[in-house]
Formats: sequence, structure tokens, C-alpha cells
Amino acid sequence: MTTQPKDTGPATDDSFHVFDTTLRDGAQREGINLTVADKLTIARHLDEFGVSFIEGGWPGANPRDTEFFSRAQQEISFQHAQLVAFGATRRPGAKAADDLQVKALLDSGAPVVTLVAKSHDRHVELALRTTLEENLEMVRDTVSHLREHGRRVFVDCEHFFDGYRANPEYAKAVVRTAADAGADVVVLCDTNGGMLPAQIQAVVATVLADTGARLGIHAQDDTGCAVANTLAAVDAGATHVQCTANGYGERVGNANLFPVVAALELKYGMRVLPDGALAEMTRISHAIAEVVNLTPSTHQPYVGVSAFAHKAGLHASAIKVDPDLYQHIDPELVGNTMRMLVSDMAGRASVELKGKELGIDLSGDRELVGRVVERVKERELKGYSYEAADASFELLLRAELRGGEEAGGAHAYFRTESWRAIVEDRPDGTHANEATVKLWVKGERIVATAEGNGPVNALDRAMRVGLERFYPPLAKLELVDYKVRILEGRHGTESTTRVLITTGDGTGEWSTVGVAENVIAASWQALEDAYTYGLLRAGVEPAE
Amino acid sequence: MTTQPKDTGPATDDSFHVFDTTLRDGAQREGINLTVADKLTIARHLDEFGVSFIEGGWPGANPRDTEFFSRAQQEISFQHAQLVAFGATRRPGAKAADDLQVKALLDSGAPVVTLVAKSHDRHVELALRTTLEENLEMVRDTVSHLREHGRRVFVDCEHFFDGYRANPEYAKAVVRTAADAGADVVVLCDTNGGMLPAQIQAVVATVLADTGARLGIHAQDDTGCAVANTLAAVDAGATHVQCTANGYGERVGNANLFPVVAALELKYGMRVLPDGALAEMTRISHAIAEVVNLTPSTHQPYVGVSAFAHKAGLHASAIKVDPDLYQHIDPELVGNTMRMLVSDMAGRASVELKGKELGIDLSGDRELVGRVVERVKERELKGYSYEAADASFELLLRAELRGGEEAGGAHAYFRTESWRAIVEDRPDGTHANEATVKLWVKGERIVATAEGNGPVNALDRAMRVGLERFYPPLAKLELVDYKVRILEGRHGTESTTRVLITTGDGTGEWSTVGVAENVIAASWQALEDAYTYGLLRAGVEPAE
Repeated sequence: MTTQPKDTGPATDDSFHVFDTTLRDGAQREGINLTVADKLTIARHLDEFGVSFIEGGWPGANPRDTEFFSRAQQEISFQHAQLVAFGATRRPGAKAADDLQVKALLDSGAPVVTLVAKSHDRHVELALRTTLEENLEMVRDTVSHLREHGRRVFVDCEHFFDGYRANPEYAKAVVRTAADAGADVVVLCDTNGGMLPAQIQAVVATVLADTGARLGIHAQDDTGCAVANTLAAVDAGATHVQCTANGYGERVGNANLFPVVAALELKYGMRVLPDGALAEMTRISHAIAEVVNLTPSTHQPYVGVSAFAHKAGLHASAIKVDPDLYQHIDPELVGNTMRMLVSDMAGRASVELKGKELGIDLSGDRELVGRVVERVKERELKGYSYEAADASFELLLRAELRGGEEAGGAHAYFRTESWRAIVEDRPDGTHANEATVKLWVKGERIVATAEGNGPVNALDRAMRVGLERFYPPLAKLELVDYKVRILEGRHGTESTTRVLITTGDGTGEWSTVGVAENVIAASWQALEDAYTYGLLRAGVEPAE
Repeated sequence: MTTQPKDTGPATDDSFHVFDTTLRDGAQREGINLTVADKLTIARHLDEFGVSFIEGGWPGANPRDTEFFSRAQQEISFQHAQLVAFGATRRPGAKAADDLQVKALLDSGAPVVTLVAKSHDRHVELALRTTLEENLEMVRDTVSHLREHGRRVFVDCEHFFDGYRANPEYAKAVVRTAADAGADVVVLCDTNGGMLPAQIQAVVATVLADTGARLGIHAQDDTGCAVANTLAAVDAGATHVQCTANGYGERVGNANLFPVVAALELKYGMRVLPDGALAEMTRISHAIAEVVNLTPSTHQPYVGVSAFAHKAGLHASAIKVDPDLYQHIDPELVGNTMRMLVSDMAGRASVELKGKELGIDLSGDRELVGRVVERVKERELKGYSYEAADASFELLLRAELRGGEEAGGAHAYFRTESWRAIVEDRPDGTHANEATVKLWVKGERIVATAEGNGPVNALDRAMRVGLERFYPPLAKLELVDYKVRILEGRHGTESTTRVLITTGDGTGEWSTVGVAENVIAASWQALEDAYTYGLLRAGVEPAE
């Protein structure tokens, strides 16, 4: 019994496909381990960015993916992209209609299916252990079967370029068979990633001329040429490009979605994304890296933190005359910004702009701005990161506005005398996590204890037990996100730990940071800032 | 007074130049700060690798570089490379013979000099603020002057491709002027990095045909195509490629030396390095990253740790038959190795191949392999990740070999009865972190307490206090790396935590994983595995 595919989004211009496989091929990168929730979040980001297709995984083969397809169709209202289920041609010697793996592709409900098919004779013989003719029949049968059930079908010709080199007639026969059976796009895959652009271009041009099929390209980055290979295929007539966010993928990785679409839009003058999408590219690239829990590559083209960072003195003086003298594009086009390195002028400018964003006018006060720049640099050297902790930055700013922390400028809703957390694993297998905090609030000394599912949770609860009767608004606060990063992880636990906490109060969220020798102490700092900011935000008057 | 250049090495085949600028352009990467000693070490690595030229810096302009050139010529016996001093054409309106910057280039003693010259009319006007004719005279004068003093001269035409697009006749005039004045190679630079391979190829071919000069290419990576751009220039007739180790450079970076030479040798069949050099590439890439104090990029083509790491189960089963089925080259050619990853995507083949990698022959036992695959998938669903925790995987494997943990198969060097950690922030501002562990070792009950800089460090020390007298080898163990990941980080601290620990014993390192409700409990698991594996590795007999 097959499920009828749901209509998952408005039709987009079908003449050029930006096909994203972050959730399928990208997940094959060493170090990535995506939960279903991660996949849903990434799918939302990709849809927001405006890719045409999101290959969500291999339902049936991978239980997490089966769940993903089910939940994605229930929980996400796709604005731009269509969901694609990935799978393989039926196994040799059977019928597509009886193949359970193929059935799972239909059951997923995805309106589009990509089938991987062997197109290299050696792989048919050694990996599939069947005949060249049977492989063609597997393609024909599986594609037709899916078409009969109303699915749109793309076929990935695995190892196409190696296969074309070994046996060009057979490789083309696979392409023709797939197209004739109803595949809308036949994707030529450089699966082992060993090709160079000139080779890709020549083969794609010949295959297009000889078969007339609509062609796509799937490039791996083993020679460091995946982006160029993708563009070379487009030059030769391909109208479907397969990429992954941040180039994640098996081995070295896949063609990186971001430099590919940036080249198509900014260099080729094509429109392959919705209006305004390109300017979101930097934000989306970082957001996906965050979900995947990988440090964003600082040196990624277009979106890296260093992509428009200028160091050489000569570059800086020219840029003062005109930034175009040393930038191939305006960074704002991709949502990035220019940065001057080792320059206090850039520091002042960002502080001023950030202050403006937070509703604090610093433009009149050069000395104050200079002091804030210094404190930020000091703190960043210690491991603080204000990029992802707006609320902690605002507290720092307000402290300087009031004359600096040394001058008693910190908000004083409460003062911490001491705290303690105990974590226990008992003989009977139970766990205990208990925390005690000693605070001074409005002249009164409070001792509060609470238990939790971990030391930080216990501290959080103890703080509330201590503070809530003085500050009722705290009851609405909830820890929404919590990230830990060990800085200079080498030489183990004698490192600095940075904790980022996101707190919500039902109407909004804010992020705070803490840096200390161990994760508990760092979490405490971030919690203190979170509560302080929450009270500031709720308009509560400081106690002192 | 000019210094006579020293003869710095045997003559190499001059028909193709591999020109390295790690020490000059590479040093412009955000985050790199090289001492003279660093530069000397890197120069030795580059010479060992066999590049033809090492551009050492800008003597005179940069005092560290002045010192580098002096010491390099005294302290290094170059086997393959020649030292190159980088500088600029003389300033407008003066004579080269009177220009102090030019004099410093001669004083450096380097036998080869690269001069950067403006070749984009707009830059001549806005940045140099002189006339187009004077710029040509600056080129002619400076090149001739250096030639008169016996230096070999290369000229870098800055912003060449942008300049060619704006004013092709002027750009070519700069090339001709440089060549006529005696420059051996005129290097066309994509300084802003905005070019794509097809554009590079067309321009290089035209300029070669129109000027007859020997051409080089210097590509920046802003579009993610620097390697491809470099190869496109070679395709069009360039015989001199400028690169940096690991692609270090201004903004995104420069063309990466390693995939460039690997393509030239392995794909083009050229000999551009000394015999045997390519097989040293992985080691040298990592060694240079070490000097520069940057984590080597795990996903770099050819030399990255993940470059030949295979995750998909289907890939593993094909690789069992023949590794060439999923690798474009034999990793040994570049000094790298194949690795099988065990993850939730793993299948039987991945487990067998991984076992083989670990020295355990599983080929005879299908039932055992099936059981291991099941346990891995179970565990991965709970949040374990074996990809980065080989030692924990090996312990799991060995446990299954002995009949499974339920059957008492776990290595029993010690049994944990209970543990407890206390973290305190005291009123006087001091911190205290104390842990107590209760263990059973060889029938004896041990209670050990220790302090540390954090709860995990304290637990680690307490374990040693408890175990070292029974197992002296544990004294050599050191925690080398420690990573924390909160899984399902949304809704704060009620999440699962995964900890990865890397431990070393002076002769090697191994990684273990722990997953639990909170970071302390997860760290405890990873520590237990780390110690168990350390004892196994030291050949200690289990207590039971």
C-alpha cells in the first residue's frame, strides 16, 4: 500500500534546479551525527534559503530518516523546496513492485524520489554482482514503477565519469534508459571525486549531445575542484546542481552550496534563488553549522568570518579609498561584512553600530566607545564571545555607561556570596544532583538548595528558589538552549570552558555567555547574566 | 652597496615552476603570526617537499623578514628550492637605483626577486596616484635595475584579470614591458579572487598568444575555485604556479599547494616535484600546520584526516571488494591512509574492516559481526558516537567477542561502586572541586578522594589515586583532549550529554566516549573506558 504524496509547497521555476543533499550526502561527513530534530531544523533553514529540492535521507534504510520524512511533512510548511526521498534501484533479479526498499520510498510520501543507479560497468559486476543488461532493467523497472505511482524521479548515475572513461557506451545507455523510463533529470555523479573541470565539461557536453536527456551534476571535492566542476557542468549544459551546505559530505566533502549559488547569481547573472535569499547566505551557513555542531569554517568563500577580512597594510589604505579595490563583491550581497584586522577604527565602528541596535546612543562619546572596545578585546582574549551573546554584551555596555564595574556599575539585583554543586552516582545506580546557593538580595542573606538532573540544572533551580519571592517575573524564565565549548581542548580538562545559554520568558529569548576553568563555573556566570538581563528586560528596578 | 647573491642550491629543471608563497602571502591569513624561527622551520619543510621557489617575505618593509633572509642563507642548505625576495616596483617619480625599498631587495641577498606591479589602470590612478605611462616606466626601470645586479626577476601583475577586463591593452602593455626589461616570468594575479576557471583560461591563452611572455598564475580562493583556476591557467600555457601550503592566505586564502601539485603529478602526469616527494605530502602538510599553530583542516583534499574516511555502509561493502571502487587514488601515494568509520550508517562490512584496522579478525564470524552492528546502532540512537572514539568501539567489540557485557564479557580491571563530585564557589572567591570514588579492585574496596580544577579533573585524579598502586602503567596516562556536546540542546539542561576524551601515554593516543544525563556522568563513562583501554593497551592482565 503506497501513500499518496502530499503537495509540499508552491511550484517554483523548474528550469534550473538547486538540489540540496545536506541531509543525505552531507550527513556522511565524518563527525556529523544528526538527530531527527536537527534534520528538521536544517530543512527549515534550507527552505528559507530557497533551494529547489531538499533530499532528506534514505527512508526505510535508515529509521531516523523514515521518522524525518513523516514529521517533516506534518510539521514544516515548505515555502520553496520540495522534499526528496533518496534510495536505490531495485535489487537484481526481482521486481520493483516487490522490492521493500523501493516500497519504503513510496511510503515516505515524498513527492520526488532520487534513485542511485550504477553506471560504471565494473561496479555492476563487482559491487552488484549482476549483468549489465539486468542493471539497465533495474533502472527501467524502478523508475517506471515510481512514475506509475505519481512520483517525480531523478536518477543519480553513480561513478558516471569513471564509468564513462571505462565504457562510454554503457554509461550513456544507463542515461538513456533512465530518461526513457521517465526520469526528469539524470544526474552525472563524480562519486570518487577524482575529476577536474575540463574533463567534466567535455563529458557533460558529449553526453548531452548524444542522449538529449536533461542533465544534472553531483561533484565530490577530493581534488579540491567540486565547485569548479559543478560550474563546468553548467557551462556544458547541466541544469540541475547537487550541493550541500558548507560542503559537508563523504570524505573531503561535496560541492559547497554557497559558493555554487553565489557564482551562479553574482557571476553568471542567473536567478536560482528567491529574491533576497542571497543576502541571508552568511547567516544560514552559520546557523546550519551550529545545528550540526561544527565550528563554522572561518575561511569559507563568501560566508566565512575571514572572507572579507583585510590584513595587509597596503590593502587597508586602498580600501579606505574604495573597498572594491580589494574585494571582488560587496560583502553585504551575501550577508557578510568587511573587517579590518588590527585596527581600532573597525572596533569603534562595530561597537557604535551594536549600541545603536540595542537602543543605546554612543555616537557622542568616543572615550566610552574606546573603553568598551578595550574591555571586549580583553574579554575575547580570555575566551568570551559576544557574537552569540547579545545580552551579555549589552550588560557589559550598560556597566561601562554607569562608570565601569569597578565603579559599582554592574546591575545589582542580587549578589552571589557562594554556591556549591554535588553530583553523585550511588552504589544502587541512582544519581543525585544537588546545589546550594548563598545570595544577598535587598540586604537579606538567602540560602537556597535544589535538586536537578545535572549540576547546572540544580544550580538554576536553586537560584530560582532563592530569588523568586523577591522577583516574581523570574518564574516565567526558562532555559531554552545550552551550549558548551572547550577552548584549547588540547591537554584535556585543564582548559577554558565557554558556555552559551539562551533563556526565554515567553515573549522573547536572549543569550548570555560565561567563561571559566570548568563547565559548572562557566555555566554559573552565564546563568547570573541570564537572570540579570531577564530582570532588566522585565523592567524591574535594581535593588541598589 | 648591493650584496652578491649566494648560490643557494642545485639547479632544478626550470621548465615548470612550483612557486611557494606561504611565508609571504600565506602569512597574511587572519590568525597567523610567524616568528623568524617559524619561518625557518617552514622553509625547511617546503625545501624538503621540493618546491622550486620559496618566497620568504618582504625584506626592508618587514624587519622580521630582513632577519629571515639573513638567517636562511646562513642556516639552511637548500636542496631543491631557491629563495625569493618579494617587493614592489619603485615609487613613482624616482629612480630604481635611488629607491630604498628596492635596495633592500638587493641587500637581502636573495638570488631571485618577485616585484609586484600594478596592471589595472584604476589602481594606478587611485592607489598609486600616478600616470599609466609612469607605471610602465616604474616596471621597466625596477626590473632592469635588478637584472643589472644579477638577480633573476619575476613580476606579479597585481589585479591582472580585473585590469584586463577594464583595459586589456594596458594590462598587456604591463606584461610586455616587464618581459622586455628582463623578467623571466610574468605572473598574472587574480588578486581579488573573483575569477572563475573559464575566464582565467581564456585570458591566459590570449595574453600568451599576444605577448609571447612566459606566464605564471597566482590565484586567490574567494570564489572557491583557486585550485581549478590555477590548473586552468596551466591548461592555457602557464608554466609557473604560485601557491601556499594548506591554502593559507589573505581573506579566504590562496591556491593550495597540495591539491595543485597532486593534480599536476597524478592527473596530468607531470613531474613537478622531486622523486618520492608526493608521498611525504600528508606529513608535511600537518607539520606546517603545527608550526603555524592552526588545527590541520580535517577535510583538506588528499592530506586531511577525513580525505579517505568512508562512512556509508554501501561504500564499505564495495571497498571490501576493492578500495578503488570508492577512492580516486591510492591514499598511500600522498602519504595518507584509508579509514573506515563506524557510525549508525555502518554495516557489516564497515565493522569487519574496522576490526581489521584494529587488529581483530572478524571475517569468520557473521553472527558476531551482526551483533556488533546491532549494539552500535542501539548505542548511536542513545547518543553514542563511535566515529571519534575508536577505543570505546574496540572495547565494545572485545566485549562482544567474550560473549557480550551481560555475560560478564566487559574487561574487569576494576568495578565502580559509586562516585561523587562537589563543585564550590566560596564567599572568598576561591573555588573548590573535589571528587570521591569507591572502587573494587582485585577483591579490595578502595575509597579515593582528590581535588582538581574542575569536577571532571577531580574525578580523573581520584581514579588515579585509587588505581595507580594496582596498575602502575596508569601513571603515564594524560588527558589530551576533551569535547562536550549537548544533544537536543533545546530546552536547556534537560538533555543528553556526550563527552569525547582523548588520552595519551607518551607513545600514542586513543579516544573514548561517554553519554549520560549530565556532563559529569558522561565524563565518568569516557574516563572509565579511557583507563580500561589504557590498561589493555599496556598489556595488563584483567583482574577477573
